[in-house]
Amino acid sequence: MADTMAHFLAKYNSNFGVGLKTEHFQGRHVFEVIEEAHRPEAREYFQQEAFFANIPVMPDSAEVIKALTGRFEVFITTAAMDVPNSFTAKFDWLQRHFPFIPTSNIVFCGDKSIVLADYLIDDNLRQLTNFRGEGIIFTAPHNVNETRFRRVNNWQDVRTLFLA
Amino acid sequence: MADTMAHFLAKYNSNFGVGLKTEHFQGRHVFEVIEEAHRPEAREYFQQEAFFANIPVMPDSAEVIKALTGRFEVFITTAAMDVPNSFTAKFDWLQRHFPFIPTSNIVFCGDKSIVLADYLIDDNLRQLTNFRGEGIIFTAPHNVNETRFRRVNNWQDVRTLFLA
Repeated sequence: MADTMAHFLAKYNSNFGVGLKTEHFQGRHVFEVIEEAHRPEAREYFQQEAFFANIPVMPDSAEVIKALTGRFEVFITTAAMDVPNSFTAKFDWLQRHFPFIPTSNIVFCGDKSIVLADYLIDDNLRQLTNFRGEGIIFTAPHNVNETRFRRVNNWQDVRTLFLA
Repeated sequence: MADTMAHFLAKYNSNFGVGLKTEHFQGRHVFEVIEEAHRPEAREYFQQEAFFANIPVMPDSAEVIKALTGRFEVFITTAAMDVPNSFTAKFDWLQRHFPFIPTSNIVFCGDKSIVLADYLIDDNLRQLTNFRGEGIIFTAPHNVNETRFRRVNNWQDVRTLFLA
């Protein structure tokens, strides 16, 4: 839903005067790729409330999720526990961009093994592995080599998988 | 875990110079009992971050929950979605009083039907009803007449039920 990587790269490239793109770290985490000297400052971005407030919405995500709510009970599960400062910013972001999701269907949790649902769409391998229903992997640079889950590359793929 | 009612009554009684006690509203919600003229101001308490930060811990709750973690996987599920201002205050409160609960085991959600667990200990009838495992009712003034769930009156009862 949130294009965190695009937002991170824009900020990182602007701060350090570089031109890092997702093509440069396929199959690896971005923090394994960026210069070691840049890492502390880059990690700091994720501690800033403003960083979360301004993340762009992924193409088609609002439209497809709205369509999903017509056929499924949709919950948004977000792992905010690593960055407690991000709770309110993430909540406000969801309310602003996905106003059709009732607040009662928003879940902040650190470990998605606690989530009772049929499907979890996520880009995080640990969360997909812990989840007890079927995990659907949403492509992100770091997870391109993973083969254990059904894969969606974008929100149109989600539409095809669940609504076609 | 949090003695929200004791905290509310202390503040309410002090603000309005009255002496309301839990005995005065057995079987009813406190907002059905307090004077109508007081209600808007009293509802405001729950919109204040400071209100949540200062709620006292229930007797024995830390000790019993710590003991439970030795035998169970314990998650704390708290319905913070009605009061988005309370996220950080609740999170900090849990970290301060229950530091042995990993942050990954804290869940903020509005609807506990999404929680996958064997038991839910809660005082809220709606959450107990929505939950898909076994709900255990924790006595609070408003729920004393409810008979559909196994009941615990305090944290020593929880210890007896799960650890005896």
